[in-house]
Amino acid sequence: MNYVREAWYVAGWSHELATGMPYAVTILGEPIVIYRGASGRLAALEDRCVHRLAPLSLGRCEGDRLRCMYHGLLFDPDGSVVEIPGQDKIPPQARVRSYPAVERHSWIWIWMGSAQRADEALIPPAVGLDHPDYILGHGHLDYAAEARLINDNLLDFSHLTFVHLQSFQAGPEFAAIPGRITPLERGIRYERWTENSTGPASLKSDELVDRYMSYDFLIPGVLLMTGGVFSPGTAQACGHGIPDLAEADGGVTFTSQAVTPLTARTSRYFFSWGPHRAHGDEAHRDVLMGIAGQAFAEDKVMIEAQQRVIENTANPVIMPTAHDRGVTLFNRLVERLIKEEECARADAA
Amino acid sequence: MNYVREAWYVAGWSHELATGMPYAVTILGEPIVIYRGASGRLAALEDRCVHRLAPLSLGRCEGDRLRCMYHGLLFDPDGSVVEIPGQDKIPPQARVRSYPAVERHSWIWIWMGSAQRADEALIPPAVGLDHPDYILGHGHLDYAAEARLINDNLLDFSHLTFVHLQSFQAGPEFAAIPGRITPLERGIRYERWTENSTGPASLKSDELVDRYMSYDFLIPGVLLMTGGVFSPGTAQACGHGIPDLAEADGGVTFTSQAVTPLTARTSRYFFSWGPHRAHGDEAHRDVLMGIAGQAFAEDKVMIEAQQRVIENTANPVIMPTAHDRGVTLFNRLVERLIKEEECARADAA
Amino acid sequence: MNYVREAWYVAGWSHELATGMPYAVTILGEPIVIYRGASGRLAALEDRCVHRLAPLSLGRCEGDRLRCMYHGLLFDPDGSVVEIPGQDKIPPQARVRSYPAVERHSWIWIWMGSAQRADEALIPPAVGLDHPDYILGHGHLDYAAEARLINDNLLDFSHLTFVHLQSFQAGPEFAAIPGRITPLERGIRYERWTENSTGPASLKSDELVDRYMSYDFLIPGVLLMTGGVFSPGTAQACGHGIPDLAEADGGVTFTSQAVTPLTARTSRYFFSWGPHRAHGDEAHRDVLMGIAGQAFAEDKVMIEAQQRVIENTANPVIMPTAHDRGVTLFNRLVERLIKEEECARADAA
Repeated sequence: MNYVREAWYVAGWSHELATGMPYAVTILGEPIVIYRGASGRLAALEDRCVHRLAPLSLGRCEGDRLRCMYHGLLFDPDGSVVEIPGQDKIPPQARVRSYPAVERHSWIWIWMGSAQRADEALIPPAVGLDHPDYILGHGHLDYAAEARLINDNLLDFSHLTFVHLQSFQAGPEFAAIPGRITPLERGIRYERWTENSTGPASLKSDELVDRYMSYDFLIPGVLLMTGGVFSPGTAQACGHGIPDLAEADGGVTFTSQAVTPLTARTSRYFFSWGPHRAHGDEAHRDVLMGIAGQAFAEDKVMIEAQQRVIENTANPVIMPTAHDRGVTLFNRLVERLIKEEECARADAA
Repeated sequence: MNYVREAWYVAGWSHELATGMPYAVTILGEPIVIYRGASGRLAALEDRCVHRLAPLSLGRCEGDRLRCMYHGLLFDPDGSVVEIPGQDKIPPQARVRSYPAVERHSWIWIWMGSAQRADEALIPPAVGLDHPDYILGHGHLDYAAEARLINDNLLDFSHLTFVHLQSFQAGPEFAAIPGRITPLERGIRYERWTENSTGPASLKSDELVDRYMSYDFLIPGVLLMTGGVFSPGTAQACGHGIPDLAEADGGVTFTSQAVTPLTARTSRYFFSWGPHRAHGDEAHRDVLMGIAGQAFAEDKVMIEAQQRVIENTANPVIMPTAHDRGVTLFNRLVERLIKEEECARADAA
Repeated sequence: MNYVREAWYVAGWSHELATGMPYAVTILGEPIVIYRGASGRLAALEDRCVHRLAPLSLGRCEGDRLRCMYHGLLFDPDGSVVEIPGQDKIPPQARVRSYPAVERHSWIWIWMGSAQRADEALIPPAVGLDHPDYILGHGHLDYAAEARLINDNLLDFSHLTFVHLQSFQAGPEFAAIPGRITPLERGIRYERWTENSTGPASLKSDELVDRYMSYDFLIPGVLLMTGGVFSPGTAQACGHGIPDLAEADGGVTFTSQAVTPLTARTSRYFFSWGPHRAHGDEAHRDVLMGIAGQAFAEDKVMIEAQQRVIENTANPVIMPTAHDRGVTLFNRLVERLIKEEECARADAA
């Protein structure tokens, strides 16, 4: 698996983790148990007891600690064993890995790199379910496909014209005219103005308008997208740059999406979407979530089929097209960061 | 997989391929999409887009062309890309493999060798569903077993005595007395006279008769079988050779069967069977298809179990018996043709 | 698979094998067909025909012989082919392996080592369903886990405190105080006295009593356990040694359990349990079997989860604890016996 390790991966929805209920998740092929202790403290441990490799996620929370329910070893949130039934001395190797874990923007984020380098400033600025400005629906989908293929999908919106013919009804424009791609320090930015148009059939306006949409796609695989509808001439007036969303006539929404590699061939895809309070209500959110549900199912069919073809191809080689600029930039960034991590590890050793 | 490539493999029933509906099939482990364009032209392409390896079988037919519905590349029936959305220039490597494909005898045949050497004269002379002389039923079965095991089964009819005890009720004779085996240029011929007998319980005659049956088993794995019932003495009179089926008193039927290797461990088995118009009707055809359904299920249980044993055997070695002459001749022919193909490829290189 | 071969493995319940009905089982990864011939003779053969590797378990019993129902080869109980249809001469290599097989204590035992060394004295002294002193229920469970993990479980009863919190309600004592472990020639013995107590919640006494329990765990993976309830002071009086079960006030039961490795990652677990006739009846047996059903399901959840963790761990290393003495002694015995077998094979060669 070729993924950045020094990054925050979304492990789940914060509100779905009940206190004292261990939750098992696999990230980058590593089994992890996450639990919220009695004090409210979040912990994420290697989900594998040091004794005989039973999963700690079948264990029992005791205060802020977690007990393996096979032979009773008790673990501190830092991963160290603090009790071995029937034995007084606890050997120093009696510990499992502990992962930095943070709850923010309604998600549980796990740092997969070295704990000393965990930097909360690197958590992507997603919009949480409790954000005062937005009315958001949310969900997740499991993929029988590697995360990179989902990232690639999200980095090239020309697929909207073809894959989402039924759901977004985005029309030929996404494939005909590339968006503007800008490199970011930890990702890429995609921007698109559509001028003097009634827009896609699924989100049609009554009059001719200018539409702006923009997303940042950030390490390790987080898409944050917004946009809005403006009076004709706005695109021109701001030189096709970033408009002030507060000036939008309508249609401002926000979607946060996160792709988490579970194993080499499976992924979990988290998402929320909904209107700005000034431009919609719960009913509008439900319409958007209905469209999203259809669209994400269309992606899943295509990407899982693509995964199966790749698995059955001895030497899978791709042929990038003009629309692949975002894909290529992002994947090069991933390669560079992985190389830097390897160098840092070599230096440390 | 040890199969001849310079041969026509059955990919499906011709009448089941609707115009404009791409159909996915795997032959010799290669994913293939087959479609009939608006003009009626049949095309068979590698089912894997050059861009990002999405399956073209999820695509959309446009006239005689096929569009990948991931990012919209458009393919000609010859496999070349003729349109890349958002990009003017089409690089020369933008093409997928195209397979020679022919509809004949109700089947779609795919040539798996080099296109230049595709020779329609090598299509086995199966009897199609529209043949004026026969009233045929048809079907197909998927096997969790390699095609060679099904070929071996069809090449040794001594199994009728044991596997088909219930269905054909063929009696001890098939195991006791071998049929006559003759090598053909691209297969083997099996012939058997049964003299002065009422025949097998499932197809019993009222009086003593002579029965003739004969099949050709042809590269890559096609069985074509016929025979009939004659007045006693006919076998003697023709020196136990080939009788004139037009002189048969009754019981003339024809069955065409084709074994297609999908992957190393899966196969598809196509078949038709039915009486000559002079010797039966739709009701008789239905009786035959009922017997065949039971018999093919008996084969499938045995062959799939055999496959599982072979997979779990470190070094599977067989011990041929006297009845294996047809199996051995055919498999040697396969080996020889494969070697010739390898030499031809080496010469070409 | 790291298991002793010169040992008797349980292949099934004796009363479940009907005369003339071949039964397929895999032991140590080897496919075996077991059948009881017309004379009542038990036979166990390699389940793989020498001809084309079809499974003999799809065959037909004929007297004390077994006929392969693919092409009709007939096998003697000693594994030799005695008939090949259509062929007069039977080559000397026409034979499959025959396994020594014995019915005893209600189980069918198969010797997996060399037939010459098969020694019935090594069959563990299980208590059969027809034993006059006990009223026994019985069953079996299939595990998606290697047998060694089930053996390890049965060799360390500290897991009762944690895994069986709900079923046996054994309390903290099993984890707090180790039992007494004694090495045996082909296994280990576990013994435990609980003094002056009402006992575990699931088997509670009305008054304070002394309780004794003891099991032998024998090669290849057979647990034989008994025990009883005694008046207070009995433990002291016999120096915490073995009491005379005939003197027990009540609670004497017997359980026989056998773990059979099917493949490297699957196992079958056979068990019986019930009260001594003097201390219980059918109703009491049913209560015990209900508790056992719940407890064995608890073990299965934990052990199959443990297996999955081990499979997903690149280099699985365990950290034994004080309670692992029985596990360690038994696994060292297994290693020693395997080494002796290898030396004996090397000497023979």
